[in-house]
Amino acid sequence: MKVLSAEHYLQEKQNKSSQTDDSHLDESVMAIISEVRQEGDKALKRMTEKFDGVKLDRITVSEEEFLQAESAVNQAFKTALKTARENIEAFHKEQKEQSWFINQPGGITLGQKVTPIERVGVYIPGGKASYPSSVLMNVIPAQLAGVNEIAITTPPDRDGKVSPYVLAAAREAGVDTVYKAGGAQAIAALAYGTETIQNVFKIVGPGNAYVARAKKWVFGDVDIDMIAGPSEICIIADATANPRFVAADLLSQAEHDEAARPLLVTTSQQMADTVRDEITQQTEQLERQAIIQQSLKQNGRIILAETLSEAFATANAIAPEHLQLMIQEPFVNLANITNAGAIFLGDYSPEPLGDYAAGPNHTLPTSGTAVFSSPLGVYDFVKRSSVIHYPKEALNQVSEDIIRLAEAEGLTAHGQSIKIRKDDDHASSDRQSQDS
Amino acid sequence: MKVLSAEHYLQEKQNKSSQTDDSHLDESVMAIISEVRQEGDKALKRMTEKFDGVKLDRITVSEEEFLQAESAVNQAFKTALKTARENIEAFHKEQKEQSWFINQPGGITLGQKVTPIERVGVYIPGGKASYPSSVLMNVIPAQLAGVNEIAITTPPDRDGKVSPYVLAAAREAGVDTVYKAGGAQAIAALAYGTETIQNVFKIVGPGNAYVARAKKWVFGDVDIDMIAGPSEICIIADATANPRFVAADLLSQAEHDEAARPLLVTTSQQMADTVRDEITQQTEQLERQAIIQQSLKQNGRIILAETLSEAFATANAIAPEHLQLMIQEPFVNLANITNAGAIFLGDYSPEPLGDYAAGPNHTLPTSGTAVFSSPLGVYDFVKRSSVIHYPKEALNQVSEDIIRLAEAEGLTAHGQSIKIRKDDDHASSDRQSQDS
Repeated sequence: MKVLSAEHYLQEKQNKSSQTDDSHLDESVMAIISEVRQEGDKALKRMTEKFDGVKLDRITVSEEEFLQAESAVNQAFKTALKTARENIEAFHKEQKEQSWFINQPGGITLGQKVTPIERVGVYIPGGKASYPSSVLMNVIPAQLAGVNEIAITTPPDRDGKVSPYVLAAAREAGVDTVYKAGGAQAIAALAYGTETIQNVFKIVGPGNAYVARAKKWVFGDVDIDMIAGPSEICIIADATANPRFVAADLLSQAEHDEAARPLLVTTSQQMADTVRDEITQQTEQLERQAIIQQSLKQNGRIILAETLSEAFATANAIAPEHLQLMIQEPFVNLANITNAGAIFLGDYSPEPLGDYAAGPNHTLPTSGTAVFSSPLGVYDFVKRSSVIHYPKEALNQVSEDIIRLAEAEGLTAHGQSIKIRKDDDHASSDRQSQDS
Repeated sequence: MKVLSAEHYLQEKQNKSSQTDDSHLDESVMAIISEVRQEGDKALKRMTEKFDGVKLDRITVSEEEFLQAESAVNQAFKTALKTARENIEAFHKEQKEQSWFINQPGGITLGQKVTPIERVGVYIPGGKASYPSSVLMNVIPAQLAGVNEIAITTPPDRDGKVSPYVLAAAREAGVDTVYKAGGAQAIAALAYGTETIQNVFKIVGPGNAYVARAKKWVFGDVDIDMIAGPSEICIIADATANPRFVAADLLSQAEHDEAARPLLVTTSQQMADTVRDEITQQTEQLERQAIIQQSLKQNGRIILAETLSEAFATANAIAPEHLQLMIQEPFVNLANITNAGAIFLGDYSPEPLGDYAAGPNHTLPTSGTAVFSSPLGVYDFVKRSSVIHYPKEALNQVSEDIIRLAEAEGLTAHGQSIKIRKDDDHASSDRQSQDS
C-alpha cells in the first residue's frame, strides 16, 4: 500500500478522470434503452437471454418463489434482517418532512406542500454477490416517505432464479413486486415501462457501469438517486488508534471490488508502519484476497499528515463516502468535517456497522460527490409544491413592482395579467368573500 | 386554441417525446465541453467569439461595469428588486435545515449533519430578454444555505456587455463575481474550471437547449438543479372564474416562447368559449403576438372535464410547473393536488405574482417533472452527512446480526472488522473512557 504525504496525494488526486469520460459505454447503453422503449418485454427477454444467459417465460417473481426463498434462508438471517429493518426505520423516520404554511400581513398565505413520489423502482445487483441489505436501505426510506408503489428489479441467475436473500429482504420490507431484469435494460424498463413493468418516476439503487450510465441517460425523464462510483473509505487515525482495527476496516473496504479505495490519513509515522504490517498479516486470513490485493495496490493509500487539521483538510478534499474518525475526541472534531457521506466516530463504530445495522443509510455519495450530495433518505422520495395565496389588496400593493420587473424582462403580457386585475373588479361573490 | 376532452388530452400527452431523444445535440455539446476542459479560457473566448459574436479581453465583469449598470437602471426598478429580494428571503428562510442527533439506549448516538455546498455557479440566460429575477431566485436560497462562493455566468451581447438589469440584481443579491460566458461552454467552465473561472460543485439556473444538455452531461461530476424544459401553466377554472383573468394568465405564459404550454382545464363549456374569445381580443393588445400565437396554436389546450375531480386528476397527470386554482374553495381542494411545481390559489394570485414578487421560487419543475422534483430551494444547496457512534457494548449486541448479513453478501472481511473488536480489547485509555 503506497505511502505518501497529504500534499502529494492531493496532487495525485487532481489527475483523476471524470465519469463523463465513460462515453464509450454510451453507444451500447443508448441502443439497449431504445430497443426496450420500442419493443418492451420482447426486448427485455431477448437481452436477459443475451446478458444473463437465461430464457424467461415470466418476468415477475411469483408468490411460490417468495415462499421457496423464505424456506431457503435460515432463522438467524431473518432475525438479522428484522434488527436491521427496525434500526433503519428508527433513524429514517427522523427525516420525515411536514408541509408548512406561513401567514403574512394583509391575508397573504404562503406554504410548501410535501407529497410522496407516486411510483419508485429499486435496482438490486445480482451476479457474484447478493445484496439483501440494499433492499432494506432503498425501500424503507421510500415507504416512510409514503411512496405508493415500490418495485424491485434484479438480474436472474442462469437458472432464472433471483437470490433468496434478496427475496427474503423484499418480504421483510413488505415489497411484493420483484422483476427478473438487470443491466441497462432494467433501467430502461423502469423509466419507460413495458407490458409487464410499470414505469416509475424515480429509480434508485446500486449497479454496474451499464446500470450507472443508463441511469444517467434516463435522468430527466425520471429522477435517479445518484451516479454511484466505486466504494471508498477514509480513516483518520492519530497515534492512539488501534492499528489492528484500522487495518481490518481498510480491508473490509478493499474486498468490495478492485476499484474500491481504502485510504488512511494519519499524523503518526509509526501508525502508518504498523497498519501496513497488520494489513499484510490480516489479508492472509481473508477469502477475497485477489480483489483485496488489487484494490490496495491500485487505490489504497496511506497518507501522512503533519497535523490533525491537515488531516481534516485532506479528508474534506477527498469528500469520502465513509469517514472514520479514530482519534481522541472524535465528537469535538465533527465541526472540522465538511464533506463526507457518513462519519463514524470512535473505535467501535466501523463501517460495516453502518453498512448493515446502525440505521443510517448505506447508499452514500461516492467518488468525492459528497461535496454536493447526501446519503439516500426519506427526502429523496418526496417532492415539494409551493403554495401562494394573495388577496386582492395585497396583490395591488406589489403590482407596481411586478410590472416593473416584468417590463425589465420584456414580458409585457405578464404585466398585463396584473394590470387587468386592477382595472377589472369582477369576481364572483364566493371568491370575493374568500379573497378579502 | 384547441378544445378537447380530458380523456383525449391525456391520450395526446402519451405520445410526447422524451428529452433523451435530443441526442443529436450531444455531439456538438460534448465537443464544446472537451475543448473547454482541454484549453480553458482560450476555448471559452474562441467560442464566445463564435457564438456571441464578440472578442473578449476580459471574462470577468469589472467593478466599473457594475457601477455603469447601477446608473443605467432607474430607481423604481431598484425598489422592485429590493421588494422581491425581501419577499424571497422571507419565504426561503423557512426552508433552512438543522443538523440533528438522537440518542439510543446503550450510549448510541446517531445523527445527520447539514453543511452547505462550498461553491455554486448560477447560469443566467442572455439574448433577447434579460432575467434579473432569475438572479435573485437562484442566488438567495444558496446564500441562506450558507454557500461560501457564488458565481454568476451570463452570455455577453455583441458589444461585450451584459444586461445592466442582471448586474443590478447581482449587486442587490450581493454577488460580485459575474462571468461573461454563455451556452455549453459556460457550463463546462463552471464544472471543470478554467484559468479565470473557478470550478463549482453545483450549477443552477435556466438556459437554452445547449445549456440544458451540457448540464445533463456534466451531472455526476457536479450537481445540477434540473433539466429545464419549456415553461407551462395549467389553470383549473370552474363556472365562477373570471374569464378575463384566466385568458390574461394563459397569455402571460404563452409569451415566454413558442414552446410554452398554456393549458386550461375547465368544467364549464361556457367558460371554455368565453376564454377563447377573451384570448383573441386580449392578444391584439400584446407585444409578443407572434410568439403567443405559435404557443397557443402548437401547445395551447382547453381541456373539458366532466367534474372537478376529473379536472384535478388531469392536472395531476400533467404535473404542471404552475397550477392556478381559479375555483370556489381553492384551499379545501389543495388536498386533491399531488403533482405541481407551484400552486396559486384564487382570483388574485396569478402566475406573474410568483414569478417575481411573492417569495416562493420561480425555478420550478417543468415538462411534467413535478411528479418527482421540487422548486429550487435552500435544500438544494446543502448536503447531509450521517453520523454514527456506537460504544463497545452496543456494537457487541448487534455484532452477530452484522456478521450474518455480511456473510449472506459474501463479504467476510466486513465480518472480520466486527469480530476483531470482540477478540481484541486493546484501545487507549482515552478512548475507553469515551466509548463506554
